Amino acid sequence: MPLEFSLKLRLVRGDEVAMGPGKADLLEAIAQTGSISAAARSMNMSYRRAWLLVEVMNRCFVEPIVVRSVGGSHGGGAHLTDTGARVLAEFRKMEAAALGAAQAHGAAFADLLK
Amino acid sequence: MPLEFSLKLRLVRGDEVAMGPGKADLLEAIAQTGSISAAARSMNMSYRRAWLLVEVMNRCFVEPIVVRSVGGSHGGGAHLTDTGARVLAEFRKMEAAALGAAQAHGAAFADLLK
Repeated sequence: MPLEFSLKLRLVRGDEVAMGPGKADLLEAIAQTGSISAAARSMNMSYRRAWLLVEVMNRCFVEPIVVRSVGGSHGGGAHLTDTGARVLAEFRKMEAAALGAAQAHGAAFADLLK
Repeated sequence: MPLEFSLKLRLVRGDEVAMGPGKADLLEAIAQTGSISAAARSMNMSYRRAWLLVEVMNRCFVEPIVVRSVGGSHGGGAHLTDTGARVLAEFRKMEAAALGAAQAHGAAFADLLK
C-alpha cells in the first residue's frame, strides 16, 4: 500500500497563527471568488469565521493581506493585496519544501511498512 | 516578535495514520517508562486510547512496534522492538528535515511579519 505524507505547517507569532493550511486555503478561495463570503461558502465555513481568520492575518503582517474592494460592504467584494499574494506564495513554497524534505526520507520507511 | 514554526507530519497508509506526532510521543513515553499504562498517564491519555494507537502501529509495520515485556499483563511492562525504535528514530529525523526545510524559507517572512 503506498505511503502518503500529510503535513500541516503553521507560522506562529506569539499566541496567534499568522499563517496555516486553513488560512492559505481561504486566501486562495478569496483570490478565486473575489469575495470573502463566497470564499467562506466554498469552504463550508461561516462568514464570521472567515472574517476572524482574515483579521488575524491582517494584524500579523506589516500590511493588510485582504482588503475589501472599492464599494464592497458586508458580503461584498474583497481581494488579496500584493503582500497577501506574496505571503500566500511564500507559504506554499515553504510547505512544498517541508514536504519534499520529508519525502526524501521516505525511503527509510519503504521497507518497514506493510 | 519571533516567528515560530509548528509542523505536524503524518505517515498515512490507506485510511490509517501509521505514524504521527502523537504516536511518536507515545513511543518515546513507552521507551522511557517501560509501560503502556505509565506512558498513557504521562500524556494524560487513557490506557484504551494508548492501546488503540499501539495496535494501529503494530499492524501498519512489517513487525510489531511495541510488545509486552515477558510476564506483563494489563498495565504491565512493554517495550519498543528494534523495528519500533528504528521507526521512531526515522520519523524524528523526517520531522526535523521537514522543519529545517521550512525554516530555511523563513527569511522570506522575516520582513513581512510585524
